[in-house]
Amino acid sequence: MTAPVSTSVFTDGPAVGLVCRACGAQYPLAAQHACWQCFGPLEVEYDTDALAAVTRERIEAGSQDIWRYAPLLPAGLEPSSRVTLNPGMTPLIRADGLAAELGMKTLWVKDDSANPTHSFKDRVVSVALTAADRLGFDRYACASTGNLANSVAAHAARAGKPSMVFVPHDLEPGKIITTAVYGGRLVAIEGSYDDVNRLCSELTETDEFETTAFVNVNVRPFYAEGSKTLGYEVAEQLGWRVPAQVVIPMASGELLTKVDKAFTEMAEIGLVDSAECRVFGAQSSGCNPIATALRAGTDEITPVKPTGIAKSLNIGDPAAGPYAIEAVRRTGGWMADVSDDEIRDGIRLLARTTGVFAETAGGVVVATLRKLLAEGRLDPAAETVIYNTGEGLKTLDAVQAAPTHRIRPSLTAMRDAGLLTSL
Amino acid sequence: MTAPVSTSVFTDGPAVGLVCRACGAQYPLAAQHACWQCFGPLEVEYDTDALAAVTRERIEAGSQDIWRYAPLLPAGLEPSSRVTLNPGMTPLIRADGLAAELGMKTLWVKDDSANPTHSFKDRVVSVALTAADRLGFDRYACASTGNLANSVAAHAARAGKPSMVFVPHDLEPGKIITTAVYGGRLVAIEGSYDDVNRLCSELTETDEFETTAFVNVNVRPFYAEGSKTLGYEVAEQLGWRVPAQVVIPMASGELLTKVDKAFTEMAEIGLVDSAECRVFGAQSSGCNPIATALRAGTDEITPVKPTGIAKSLNIGDPAAGPYAIEAVRRTGGWMADVSDDEIRDGIRLLARTTGVFAETAGGVVVATLRKLLAEGRLDPAAETVIYNTGEGLKTLDAVQAAPTHRIRPSLTAMRDAGLLTSL
Repeated sequence: MTAPVSTSVFTDGPAVGLVCRACGAQYPLAAQHACWQCFGPLEVEYDTDALAAVTRERIEAGSQDIWRYAPLLPAGLEPSSRVTLNPGMTPLIRADGLAAELGMKTLWVKDDSANPTHSFKDRVVSVALTAADRLGFDRYACASTGNLANSVAAHAARAGKPSMVFVPHDLEPGKIITTAVYGGRLVAIEGSYDDVNRLCSELTETDEFETTAFVNVNVRPFYAEGSKTLGYEVAEQLGWRVPAQVVIPMASGELLTKVDKAFTEMAEIGLVDSAECRVFGAQSSGCNPIATALRAGTDEITPVKPTGIAKSLNIGDPAAGPYAIEAVRRTGGWMADVSDDEIRDGIRLLARTTGVFAETAGGVVVATLRKLLAEGRLDPAAETVIYNTGEGLKTLDAVQAAPTHRIRPSLTAMRDAGLLTSL
Repeated sequence: MTAPVSTSVFTDGPAVGLVCRACGAQYPLAAQHACWQCFGPLEVEYDTDALAAVTRERIEAGSQDIWRYAPLLPAGLEPSSRVTLNPGMTPLIRADGLAAELGMKTLWVKDDSANPTHSFKDRVVSVALTAADRLGFDRYACASTGNLANSVAAHAARAGKPSMVFVPHDLEPGKIITTAVYGGRLVAIEGSYDDVNRLCSELTETDEFETTAFVNVNVRPFYAEGSKTLGYEVAEQLGWRVPAQVVIPMASGELLTKVDKAFTEMAEIGLVDSAECRVFGAQSSGCNPIATALRAGTDEITPVKPTGIAKSLNIGDPAAGPYAIEAVRRTGGWMADVSDDEIRDGIRLLARTTGVFAETAGGVVVATLRKLLAEGRLDPAAETVIYNTGEGLKTLDAVQAAPTHRIRPSLTAMRDAGLLTSL
C-alpha cells in the first residue's frame, strides 16, 4: 500500500491531502484508502482558498464534460493529464409527464445513461485513472457489478493501457459483452460482488499488483470524488441553485454522500446561495442494508446477501452506508426500498413518460420516488431531481417487452389486426 | 398526400419550399415527398440570403445539440416548437490507436452512439417531428430497421403523443425491446425492410392515417435534412474546417448525401473556407446495391434482397443511392462493402483501440476503411473522419465476447489461472 511516486505530482490542483472520515487523521495525497490508525475510509481534502477562488464564469467557460469542474476535483486540471472518455454534462430532463402521473409539480431526471459507456461510472473512473496515472500506475483494474467494468475496460482501451477487471460470474450478458469487447482481461468470479471486492483488496497487497490501480480500492478516495460532478451539474443546469429534493440510488452509498458534498461545497464557495436539499436514498428490497439501518434508527449496517434484478446496486456490505444515513438524516430526507416487480414497473413508467430507458437502478429510483410519495415522506409540490445512473440496454432481461402486433405486409392484414384506425 | 395545414407555419425558419431532385419542379412546404410530375424525391429549399446571414458566432452561442444549427434547418428555430430529445453535439474522438494500427496519420471517430436513443436517427426524427407538429400531424410513425423505431417511440413518449412503428419481424432483440418499452404500438412485419417501407407508403394514402406523420415517408424531406447536422458538427468540432476524407455507412444512401450537402452549404455561407472533402461510402456485402452500381460505372441501382448481420443498413432498394453515387464521384471518393466476419472484426478493432463500442453499422465503416486503405483508394496521410452511427449494445448477438477467465475468489485461484502477474 505504498504510493509508487511522491505527492508532488498533484501540485496543479486544489487537493492537498487525504483525511480519515472517522478519526480525522491526515495523510499526504497517495494511493491509500484506509486510515492506518483506525481503518476508517479516507477522503480527499482541498485547499479551501483554492476552492473559494472558483467562479461560475470559470466553470461556464470550460469544456462540455466533467472537466469543467476540474478546479474542484483532485486531478485533471491540466487537460493533457487526463485519462478519460470525457463523460459528463449529461441531460437534465424536465419530466412533466411523469410528474403528472405521480401528482408532482416539478420533476427532473438527471440522465447519466448518456455517458460514453452509459453509466455514471465514467465520471469516477476518469477521475480515478487521471490520479492513478500521475501516481505511476501502469495497469487499470476494478471490482465491479458491471458498469464499472465496462467503464474501466473502455478507458484502458482509449488510453492504450492493459486492464484486468473482476466481476461476479452471474452478471447480465449486456454488461459482460460490453466489457469483453474492449479486449482487456475480464475475470468472472464464482461469488458475490462482496467476494469480488475482498479478492481485489487482497490483490492490492501483492507484489504482482503493486502498480495496478484498482479504481475503487487503492485509489478509491480519488474515484469517489468523481461523483461530486453529478451534484455540480444538476445545480449548474438548474441555473446555479440546488433542487429542494433529490432521489439517488444506493449501492455502496457513496454517490449519495458525494452529491450532498457537492451541494455543500458549492454553497460554501458561493456558487449557489443555499445548499438546502433533502436527500433521499433508493435501494432494492433484494439488497437494502442501508435503508434497513436508517429505519431501525441506527448507523450500524448489517451486511446482507444480495438478491434481485438490480444487480448494479447489489453491494451487501456498503462501505459508505453510515455516511449516506448521516446525510439523509441531516437534510431531512428518507430512504425506501422496492421489489423487483416495482423496479420493472418503474423502468416502464419512466420510459413511457419521458423517453428515457433506464437500467434496473433507474427503475429502483422511480419506484422509490413513488413509494416515498405514497408514504408522505417526499413533498410532491417541491422541486425534485431523480438520478438515472445507467442504461436500459444493459439490463434487457429485466424488461419483458415484445412487439404489440405481428402481421403480414398488407393493408388487409392491418385491417384484420384492428390497426387501420386513426387516433 | 395533402398537407393538413398551410405552409405559413414555417415562416420562422429559412426553408421556403420543396424542390424535385430529379426535374427541379417546385412545391410549397408541405407533407409531400415525391414530385407530382416525375415522381422524383423532393428536397427542402432554403432562402439563400437567410443561410448566408448565419455566422459561426451565432452557432457557437447556441445550445449543445443539433438546434444550434436551427438557422440552417427547415424547422425548430423557435425553441418551444421543437419535438425533440435534444440529440447532437456527440463526441468527435481522436483515434490515434486505430490510426496507428491502420498506418494512418490523423483519424477521428464521430460517435453518434452518444445520442439519446444511441443512434444518429435521433437527429432526423427531431427535425421530422418538429416539422410534422407544425403541419398538424397528431400521431408519429415510421418504417424502420430498428434504430429509427427506437427513436420515434422515444420521441413520442417524451412528447406525450401516440406512436405506431413498423419493423421487420427478425430484428435484433435489443432494438425490439428498446422500442416496445416506450409503450407505443410496435408492429412486426413478416417481410423485409423494403416490404415494411412499401406498406407504410400505402398507409399514408389511407384516410385513417391522414394525420399520421411517417417520419421517413410523408415528411421525408424534413427528416432527411436532419442528417446535415452530422456534417455541420464535424466541421465545427475540427475548428470550422472540413476533413480531407470521410467514410459514411449507407442504407438508403441519404446520410452520405446530406453530410456532403452540409459541407457544401457551409462553404457557400462562408462558415468554412473550402468544402473539399472526398466522400467514401460503406456497405455490407449482404446488402451492397449502391457500391455495386458505382463499381459497374452506372447510376442505375439494381435492388437486392438483403442478408447479413448489419441489419440497420439492410435496405435493398435504396432511395438515395444515385445521389450517393453522384456525391462520391464528384468528390473523388469511392465505396466498398465488407463481409460479416470483417464487420465483427471491425467492431472489435474499434472497441479495442478507441473505447467506442459500435453496432454492426460502425463495424461496417471500420472494415470498409481498412479495405479502402488496402485498395489504395483512401489516402492514409490525409485527415479522415469515420462515422459510427449506432450503439454496440443494440447488436450484442453480432459480437461473441465472454469473460477471459472464470475462477473462485482466492489468491490461489488467481495463481492457478496464471493471473497473479504484474504487467
